[in-house]
This record gives sequence, structure tokens and C-alpha cells, in this order.
Amino acid sequence: MRILLINGNTSPATTEKGAAEARRIAGPGVEIVPVTADFGAGLILTRADNVLAAHAMMVALAKHHKGCDAVVIAVSTDTGLGALREISPIPVVGMTEAALLTACMMGGKFGMIVFDRRAEPVFREVVASHGLTDRMAALKVIDMTVADFADPARIAVLTVAAAKSLASEHGADSVIVTGGTMAGVAHKLQEQIPVPLIDGISCAVLHAITLARLAFPKPSSGSFVAQPIERPKGLDPDLVEFIGRASNRE
Amino acid sequence: MRILLINGNTSPATTEKGAAEARRIAGPGVEIVPVTADFGAGLILTRADNVLAAHAMMVALAKHHKGCDAVVIAVSTDTGLGALREISPIPVVGMTEAALLTACMMGGKFGMIVFDRRAEPVFREVVASHGLTDRMAALKVIDMTVADFADPARIAVLTVAAAKSLASEHGADSVIVTGGTMAGVAHKLQEQIPVPLIDGISCAVLHAITLARLAFPKPSSGSFVAQPIERPKGLDPDLVEFIGRASNRE
Amino acid sequence: MRILLINGNTSPATTEKGAAEARRIAGPGVEIVPVTADFGAGLILTRADNVLAAHAMMVALAKHHKGCDAVVIAVSTDTGLGALREISPIPVVGMTEAALLTACMMGGKFGMIVFDRRAEPVFREVVASHGLTDRMAALKVIDMTVADFADPARIAVLTVAAAKSLASEHGADSVIVTGGTMAGVAHKLQEQIPVPLIDGISCAVLHAITLARLAFPKPSSGSFVAQPIERPKGLDPDLVEFIGRASNRE
Amino acid sequence: MRILLINGNTSPATTEKGAAEARRIAGPGVEIVPVTADFGAGLILTRADNVLAAHAMMVALAKHHKGCDAVVIAVSTDTGLGALREISPIPVVGMTEAALLTACMMGGKFGMIVFDRRAEPVFREVVASHGLTDRMAALKVIDMTVADFADPARIAVLTVAAAKSLASEHGADSVIVTGGTMAGVAHKLQEQIPVPLIDGISCAVLHAITLARLAFPKPSSGSFVAQPIERPKGLDPDLVEFIGRASNRE
Amino acid sequence: MRILLINGNTSPATTEKGAAEARRIAGPGVEIVPVTADFGAGLILTRADNVLAAHAMMVALAKHHKGCDAVVIAVSTDTGLGALREISPIPVVGMTEAALLTACMMGGKFGMIVFDRRAEPVFREVVASHGLTDRMAALKVIDMTVADFADPARIAVLTVAAAKSLASEHGADSVIVTGGTMAGVAHKLQEQIPVPLIDGISCAVLHAITLARLAFPKPSSGSFVAQPIERPKGLDPDLVEFIGRASNRE
Amino acid sequence: MRILLINGNTSPATTEKGAAEARRIAGPGVEIVPVTADFGAGLILTRADNVLAAHAMMVALAKHHKGCDAVVIAVSTDTGLGALREISPIPVVGMTEAALLTACMMGGKFGMIVFDRRAEPVFREVVASHGLTDRMAALKVIDMTVADFADPARIAVLTVAAAKSLASEHGADSVIVTGGTMAGVAHKLQEQIPVPLIDGISCAVLHAITLARLAFPKPSSGSFVAQPIERPKGLDPDLVEFIGRASNRE
Repeated sequence: MRILLINGNTSPATTEKGAAEARRIAGPGVEIVPVTADFGAGLILTRADNVLAAHAMMVALAKHHKGCDAVVIAVSTDTGLGALREISPIPVVGMTEAALLTACMMGGKFGMIVFDRRAEPVFREVVASHGLTDRMAALKVIDMTVADFADPARIAVLTVAAAKSLASEHGADSVIVTGGTMAGVAHKLQEQIPVPLIDGISCAVLHAITLARLAFPKPSSGSFVAQPIERPKGLDPDLVEFIGRASNRE
Repeated sequence: MRILLINGNTSPATTEKGAAEARRIAGPGVEIVPVTADFGAGLILTRADNVLAAHAMMVALAKHHKGCDAVVIAVSTDTGLGALREISPIPVVGMTEAALLTACMMGGKFGMIVFDRRAEPVFREVVASHGLTDRMAALKVIDMTVADFADPARIAVLTVAAAKSLASEHGADSVIVTGGTMAGVAHKLQEQIPVPLIDGISCAVLHAITLARLAFPKPSSGSFVAQPIERPKGLDPDLVEFIGRASNRE
Repeated sequence: MRILLINGNTSPATTEKGAAEARRIAGPGVEIVPVTADFGAGLILTRADNVLAAHAMMVALAKHHKGCDAVVIAVSTDTGLGALREISPIPVVGMTEAALLTACMMGGKFGMIVFDRRAEPVFREVVASHGLTDRMAALKVIDMTVADFADPARIAVLTVAAAKSLASEHGADSVIVTGGTMAGVAHKLQEQIPVPLIDGISCAVLHAITLARLAFPKPSSGSFVAQPIERPKGLDPDLVEFIGRASNRE
Repeated sequence: MRILLINGNTSPATTEKGAAEARRIAGPGVEIVPVTADFGAGLILTRADNVLAAHAMMVALAKHHKGCDAVVIAVSTDTGLGALREISPIPVVGMTEAALLTACMMGGKFGMIVFDRRAEPVFREVVASHGLTDRMAALKVIDMTVADFADPARIAVLTVAAAKSLASEHGADSVIVTGGTMAGVAHKLQEQIPVPLIDGISCAVLHAITLARLAFPKPSSGSFVAQPIERPKGLDPDLVEFIGRASNRE
Repeated sequence: MRILLINGNTSPATTEKGAAEARRIAGPGVEIVPVTADFGAGLILTRADNVLAAHAMMVALAKHHKGCDAVVIAVSTDTGLGALREISPIPVVGMTEAALLTACMMGGKFGMIVFDRRAEPVFREVVASHGLTDRMAALKVIDMTVADFADPARIAVLTVAAAKSLASEHGADSVIVTGGTMAGVAHKLQEQIPVPLIDGISCAVLHAITLARLAFPKPSSGSFVAQPIERPKGLDPDLVEFIGRASNRE
Repeated sequence: MRILLINGNTSPATTEKGAAEARRIAGPGVEIVPVTADFGAGLILTRADNVLAAHAMMVALAKHHKGCDAVVIAVSTDTGLGALREISPIPVVGMTEAALLTACMMGGKFGMIVFDRRAEPVFREVVASHGLTDRMAALKVIDMTVADFADPARIAVLTVAAAKSLASEHGADSVIVTGGTMAGVAHKLQEQIPVPLIDGISCAVLHAITLARLAFPKPSSGSFVAQPIERPKGLDPDLVEFIGRASNRE
């Protein structure tokens, strides 16, 4: 089985971090195919960055889906999730979507750690878009400086403190560590935390395997039917051809 | 890996149906361990039946968990989910919980088919308890008679009609077929339906495998910590011992 | 008129506290019939304890309902409320349900005091199950030690402080003091608090009297119709007979 | 005990209907004191009518509260409920508020029958203002002509049909019959309906008795504190004096 | 174009403050027609005051609407909004309604500053009545003394501090300054605040101009149809005549 | 004053329809500057089309904003609204956002007409994203064929029927006619409909004028602060420069 891991940031280093965590959890018999966006921001931060990344990820899916069984969106705001799911002939899972649904299976309420104050409202919108706002105990922002990002030990200290506070003060029954660049961090810090510490990449890879095994057909009804672009103009030809093809439900 | 499949109905025939679907999807290397409740209703229908089944499933978990890696609740109202998750040292997944979370990964809204008018409000409460009411497009009741249950062809006709209506008239992007006794039906009817047709047992088995692989520790904080029963009276000794042990987080 | 007061804890001392408060408010002409659960936890704390208590309370209702006009559930998580209401030929009121509805009649928003950190999420689920989450101003946990419970003066000090804070800082227009073991405490502390201090037992007794007077028939439609257990196995014979009888709507 | 029943319509005939049902349920030892608004609409239909009635009911409360123990608002849109509760030294219950809370104690979901298409959104707003929208199964409008109102047999036929439909098709576990002019109708039709048929007046009278017995103090904190009118101009002197007095919490 | 600005407080000084801000924003070609309520409280604070003001504003509308193109309610709890909208042949906008809708167009979430602790729940109810509770980041109360109100410099300091806190700590993307007496304050303090500071009067005047230009007809269906008062008693003859006329949709 | 009207469809004919309605309502002294997207779908239908259009509209804003005072998004799914608002130094209004907020000022609940079955869930998501789901009475789909679109008389008949049904059967107090290609239709059909018939373009133009007059500063706090793209790659240079500039808050 092959899982396509699409990073919407144009930074290959981040792609590699995600791929490493994906390979750790996937186990033998599953190949991870990492892909980096061709255009857009090196680090997705704003709503504008997300629009650009969604476009770039659609192109990446068109160019790299062949031979893959499922897709993981390796951007923690689940950028382009609806559009990719719509045009893709194979299942698509967002990394934060996957983390949220896994947190639901821990029961009760989840906490969330976000590493940029600016991203807080966007993450709240992501949770709301899945209909899960009422299951969030609290969200904590660790407002990272560039220096903090270069210092894994400092990230670890701040993350452990935030996770402990979410568990003990806010009653979180599990804690989601967001961020594509944080892939693998949860796994390393788990033993210091009294509740499950959830990482989106590992959850998304396993849920993608599950969806590939369930082997549902591409829908031919509803709002996720693929449909050729009406009179396309100025677009990547691979993307135009892909969406056309997908709508024929090959 | 071994998955414990607990049927809260006291009917071994229903247990076998669920086990067959579980084995079909689990694949090699995963053993399904089916267990039937020792006391309660032969067919769970009412709120009262559910209370009795929840107790019986706690006892079944205590007696049969040894050597298993995760638990599937094979009752479609997810009977006893919170209590079992609390006392169990290994992950627990409800079959309808699993179906709902899988439906979320199809995107958009799901429809639901329920095979007993009386069970409708209980299923609505289950959906609400997961916080997912806003993602339900519609729920359809097929009010089965005993004759209908004995006639698989008739069940198929009614189920296909309901699923098609949910997709085309209510805009459902996927449809959940509830009911432990319906295990395997969705898989057989899928090709007639334009959207994914979701069966709780197969989803629950795959999600249980995912949780076993993620290997989160039993929480030592929050509302799912196991805790010995305070001054127990008149209870099954295996259950009392199990809950005591679990609270020591072996 | 006779009101059956069922305590799901197996501790007769708690039953007596509730019965005393019930008798204080009931006034002449109303007899309180207190009953203690036969099996389960001495003190209900966990979700598992609640499942066991719900079963025990169903049995207690079956054995003791004769000659009574209404039932009060004297466990503050309203354990088994849905199941008991379903099988009972006479009205059933939960003590926290009663407190919540009384708080609604005070107008505005209510505060809630809970005496065990672990119980906080369970109480939030109880409030949500009644659809009243938006009317809760705030919930405060007083995390009691065993020593605190043995020291009524200390309980009083902590309760008064929490209630005052809920009124002045959180804008609560009334405050609910939860807990079967706290029965009567609200009444004693009322004069120190600037808003109504609400006790579930006294509210439940008066609402039970109201329902008995309104004398609605047992429903023969909807999800609270009593229905015999399908092929019962391993259950208390009184319970089986009772549920059968109730379904004949005597 | 004396219960003040304030009708905000300026029609004494409606007041009498409500008073008759109130006396039927109140039982011995409870005196019903019916009062009719001095100004406003003969029959409250619109939002404008409601504003006028709220003012008139404040004046009526000021003039007639002496010697009473609790107040029932005998207008089925609970006109003026917040304002009357604020200025009144004794408890105030709205007739639809009382019906809704009683319906909650029946468990599950309630249906609602409204006798004027125009009033439908206002009743939906009343239900929402109590936070209970999610517990409403459905609302049915019987769009009455003047001829219908003069024909009790026709009202009965239409009401029974609507209530049966709410129970069987919409899954209502109870049905509220709204309308001050419908007082007593539910009681007469109950035996034809498979679920409890709830009348606001009778519920409000019994809940008012309950609140009088609970004897909570007038709040001195929160949004229902009475407070003298700042520089009053052009108002009924009894009202000005009453609000002044009430704020002294006699 | 002429905009009728109705102040429900009986204080002409407050009317003038609102009129000044209205004139500042309205620009040439728009005449502001300020009117003060004839009866009620000098300063509206309580729910009771609001009921009285709603009645007084209906009378004011009846007496002063002639020749006007739209109406602004210059009371920040949008007193009487529904009733005035119902009876008025020309569009009606509430000042807080207008501020809320303008805040929505700033994107994200808004903060709110309220200048009286007692008014906090009433403002929360206003926000809820517009369905916008989920878009409020936070509400801050500045509990003003009479001395504070007489000291504009102190008001400015407190308002700036509250607005800055709402933006930086609560993530508000805009901040609404409530209160008819605060008209014009937001405009003066804007340069000190990092997000839009919104004043209800200026928003309401511009939205009223918009509605006048859109020139929708008075509805002849739905819950805002004007309808003569049924058998009016003891009311202002201008009001009775006005409502009668409006219902003929002149 | 100059209003930039950006059409995300690559069809100039649709742009012209919107511009004509915009000019009709704008009145003298306001210049409408219509712009058509450079790349993407000729007719936006799917989620994928929307992602592409959002990118194209960001580029169009970068290239054409100079000298304009506010922006109208002339795509009825408010494509790219958050991203454009974030990067734009001048106010941005979505056409459906504007229609929704105008509908709110009509009071009560609005109906919505959508001209493509597939677009229904997308419009529901738009309404939800503004937090206004509870204010929608109902949504009606007119499933247009290509023939229908070429036949204005047929569109008129279907739209009038849908609007009348929304008003009379679903209790809508106003009706929103969605669709950039429907610009101007509402105005022409208004006289046949008993409630306000709302068109997004005209509302958006007037609200854009209002926002330009209110002249709030670009926020320097919150989630709509413009921020340069981190290490941009493969993007339109005008867009990169524009976002850089905007973040300097010129």
C-alpha cells in the first residue's frame, strides 16, 4: 500500500519531518510517498498563505497520485481538504482531522496546543468546520520565536507544560499537538504526560490505511463528486486533465 | 494482534454475524475474539435493556480482556462505551462511534438508517453524545417486522431505497447502516449506492487496530482514569478485581 | 401521597440524609419512602459505578414502587433516569434535573457547585443531556478530601465561598449545590448567599408531587413506552416481572 | 397560599378560563387571585401587543401583589416574564415556561401546538429564550378562524389530530397545548392522546406553589435584582412606588 | 433623506449626544430627526425600564415618523426593536444590531465593552437574539460610578484599556463600544486601538440609509406584518391610529 | 468614491451583469470598477473551482486595488473572503455576507434560493461560517439546466414560486436570491413577492460604501493583520509585492 503525503509548505525540510513520523507508524508493507508544494509560502501562516497552498496541493495531487492508495494532507490547518477530497479518486485525510477523530475515540474532551498566536483563530475554525467545538476542553498557544523553533529542548519544555496544564486544569482527556513541523514530538514526550498526546501525522497515516482498506467507491452523488472544470483558463494542464479524469470515476 | 468483540445482546447468533464481518475486514495477523453477554436481553431494544447490557459488558470485559489489544463494542447504540473505556486498560471503540468518525472522513454530511422506530431517539442521542448532530443530513427509520428480519432480500430492498433517498433527497455524502445484526449488509449493497455505505463493525475493527498501534498509555488524569469501586457490594468478583487492577494501570 | 426516594449508592447513611431533607420540604400529607440500592458502589464516583447503580435502581424500583405515586432519583448524576422513566408506571424525577428546572424558573443563568474534580465532566454531560448548557454561568469544583467530608463547618465555608464567587464574578442568578450527601446544606447556608441556593432533593420532591397531581397517563407512544425484555437471561425475577407488567400499562 | 394569576389580555373572559383551570388543579388551601390587564389589546397577537401587555402586567403586579405568595403569567408567550421577575418580591412563573419545564420531566422531546400561524415565530423565540430549542420535536400550527374559536368541538378535533401526529410522526414524548384561551382543553382531551398533553396554566400554578414553598429570598445579586426607576417620568404612581419598594427587598 | 433617531431614555441630553454623532457620519443630504421618549426612565438600566421604554418608543414612532425614510433606535439594548420593526412602514435599525453586523464585516470575532455590570446579561441576550453569540470573543464590563460618567478623560482611559485587552488577550478582531451615552467616544479613541472600534449610532445611521435606498416593501407576510390592535383599550390614540394605518401598508 | 468589484469567475459577461446592478444602486458619486479573474473556471461550481478562484481574486486585488476605497466580492459563495480581507488595506465585503446581514435587519428569519443542487452544501457552509444558521428559515434549490439559464422568463417563474413558498410555507421574513449571474433579478421580481427579496450585489455595494465612510484603520492586531509571505515561491510578483506592502499598513 502507498500513502501520498502532501506538504503544502514549499519547505522540503518540513516534508521530511512528516515523512519520518509517517514511516515510523506505518509499519512494514506501507510505502510513504512524500511530496512538497511547488509554489506558495515556505511556511504557511496566514489565510492568504492557505489559499495559495490549497491551489498548490491540488496541483501536487494531480501530478503525484498515480499508484497511491490514499492521501494525507501534511499541513496542520487541513489546507484544501474539501477541494482535494472532491477531486481525488482515492481517500484523503487531513492531519488535524485525523488527530481530532482519534481524540474523540479517547472519550471526553481534548485539549489543543498551537505554536503561533496568529494561528489560533484558524485552528478554532478548523475544529468548528468538523463540528467538534463542543468537545474541545481548551486551546493553548505557545507563542514561539524563531529562536524557540531552533531549540528542540525548549519546545519540549513548553509543550510538556502546556499539555500538563490542559490535562490538570482544563480537564482534557487527551491533547493534540498541532503543526506539521512538530511531527514526532508528541511520541517523544508522551511518557511525561498523563493523557494521550496526539500527533496528526501518525493518526492520519493510520486512518488513511483504514480508508484504503474499507475501499469505498468514489461518490457519484453529493458534494464530493468530482466534476470537470467549466471552461478552464490559465491553469496547470495536469490539474485540468486530472479533474476531468477523476470526474469519470476511473 | 487480538481484538475483543463484545456483544451486549445475549444472543450468540448476533455475535457470530458481527465476528464474521470483523474477520472479513481485519485481514491476516489479526485475531477476532468474540464474546456474548452473560445476562440481559436477547435483543437490546429499550433504554432499560441498555442499562442491563452495559453492566453485562463490563463483566464480559473483566473476564475476557486478557491477551487482547483493543476492544470493539458490537452493539450499535455503543452501550456502556464510557464505562468500558474508563475501566479498560486497552483501547475501546464503539461500533457506531467508529461509523460516525469514518463518515466524517468522507466529508460533508452523513445519513443514518435505523431499523426500529423506537430506537430512533436513542440513536439521535448517540450522535449528539459524540457532538456530531450538525453533521447528520437525515435519519431514516425502516420499521422492521419480525418477518422482515427473516427475509434478507426484503431488508436489502428497503435498505437500498433508504440509502438512495438519503443521498439524493437529503444530500448525504455517506450513509451509516446501524445495527449489530446488520453487520456485513453494507458491504454487500455498496455497489447499488452512489455514496459510501458504512458498517460500524468493520470501521470499529480497523479503528481498534489503529488505536492499538498508536499505543497511547492508559490516562492517569481526566474522566477516564480507572478507579477501584468504593466499598463494592453484591458485584461479580471478577469485575471488582478487574477494576481494582486496572486502576493500578498494569 | 407517597414518594419513593431511591438512593443508588449502597450506603444507608446517605439515603437517610436525603430522606431527612425530603421530609422537611414535603410537608404534611406526603410520605417519603426511602430505599437503598442492593448492589454496587458504597459511594458512586465513576462512570462504571453509575452503570452498576442504574441497574440496581431498576431493581429497587421494581421491588418498592407499589403504593407509591412518584419516584425521586436521589443520586446527583441522575443515574438511570432514562431507563427508570421508561419502565416506571409512575412519574420519575432526577434530583439534578429538578434542580436545573428550578434554576431555570429563577431566570437568567445558574451556577453549579460540584464536590469532586473527577465528577466535573459527568455533571457537564448531565446538564448537556437536559439541553441546558447555555444557561450555565459557570461550574465550580470543590475538590474535597475525606477529612473535608467529615467536617461540616469546613464544607460550609468552602460552599459559601464558591456560591458567592459564582454570583458576583460569574453572574449566576442562582446556584445549584450538587450531591446526594449535601442534601439540606443549601437550605442552611441560604441566608449567607445573595441568590437562591438550590438543593436537588427538595426540588425533586416538590416536582414529583406536581407530576403526581398532574396525573398524566403512562405514554403508549414515543421512546418512554415500557416494553417487556426480549428473551431475558440472568436477571432479577422481580425486575423482569415488573417491566412486563409496566408494559401492560396498569 | 394565594397565587396571583395575571392575564395580559384586556379580556376578562380569557382571565376566567385560566382561573377555572387554575382552581381545578390547585386543590384546597390555595386561593387563585385572577387579574386582567387595564390597557392594551383585547387579544394579544403581535409583538407590538406584547410590549403593551408587558407594561400593563407590570402595573397589574404593582397594584395586586399584596398578600400573594407567587405569580402566574397567564399569557402563553410569557409576556413580560423577565421584567416581572425582576421587579417582583415573590416568585413569578410563565405559563409556557412552566409547560416547557414540565415537558422536560416527561423525558425526550416535546411537540407544541400553536393556534395562529402568525404566532409561530414568537413561540419559537420563547422556546429558544429558555434554551430548549433542541428538545422540541416539532411545532404544529392550527390556523384558527374566528368560527373555529367559537366551536369547541372543532377545536377538539383539530387539536387531537395535531397531537397524534406530533406523537406518531414526529416522535414527541409529550405535547404542549399553548394559548391562554385553551386553558383546560388539554385535560379534557388527554384520554385520546398516547402521550402527556400539557397545559401551561395547570403546570404554572403547581410550579408557583413549589417556588412559594421553597421560599428562596429575592436575589440581591445578578440581573433579577429589583432597582428603583432612575428619574421616572409619566408612569403609573403605583408602579413607581412598587418598584421602589421592591428594591428595598421587603 | 430623513432619519428618525428615537431615544427611549427620557433624557434629552442623551438624545443630543446621539444626534451629534449621527450628524457627523450622515454627511450632507441626510437630515437627522432626534426624538426623546415621553415617559419611562431617565436612564434605562433594568429589564423593567426596557419594557416601559419599548412602549414609549412605539408612541414616539407613531407621533414622529411622518416624512422620515428610516428609523434608528438610539438605545443600546435595541429596546423594542421587534415591535417597532413590526409596526413601522419604514425600515428600523437598532444601534447595537448595526454595530454587531458591522463587526461581522470586519471578519473573525468581536469584543464588546459594557459600562454597567448589571447590563452584562442583557447585552449577552441581545447578542444571542441576533444569533451571534459564537462570534463574540469576549465581553468586558467597565463598572462606572457616577463620578466616572462625569469624567470623560477617565472614561477614555478605561475604554482604551478594555479595548486593548479585548484585542490582545481575547483575540477580538474588532471592538464594539456600547451605550447611547457613549456616542462618538469610539471615533475619538480609535487611533489608540489596534482594531476597529465600533460605535452603534454611526453604524445604525449608515445602515438605515442603506435600507432606505434598497427600498424594500413593507412585508405582507411573515412575523413583521403590521396588524391593527384587536379591541384596543387605554392606549395613546396616535399609536392606535398609526398601527391601524401601517397595517393598511400605506 | 470607487468600489472595486471582483468577479472570481473568468467570464466577463457575468462581471458585467454584476457591474450593472452595482451601478444601479450605487447612485451618483460612486464609481464601480469591475474586474474579472485571470485564471480558473469560467463558471465556479465546485470546491476545487473555489480554491482556484480565491487565488485568482487575490491576484486581481493586488493588481487593481489602487485608487479604490472598498472591495466587493462578486461571487456568491464569498470565495476567498477571509484571505482578501486579510491582505487588503481597504474594506472587503462578500456579496452573500452582505445579503445575509441585510436579511438580519429585516428581522426574524431569512429564506435562501440556490440555483444548483450541488451548491447547496457549500451555501449552507457559507451561512454557518457567518454563524447565522439558526436564522435561516429554509433553503430552496432550483436545479437549473443550461436551457433554464438561457431563458430569463423561466428563471423568473421558478424564482417567484420558490420565494413565495419560502415566505408562506417556511415563514421566511425575507428571501435571499443567490448567484452572481442572478444580479438584478431580485429587484425586478420584488413586486410579486410578499417579503423583501434580497440581492447580494446591491447590498454589498451599499455596505462597502458604509465601510469606506466609517474609515476604520487596517487592524494591526488579530487574525486579519496582513503579513508578508514567508519565503514566497512561484507566485505572481504583483501579489507578493502587494502583500508585503499591505503588511506595512500604508
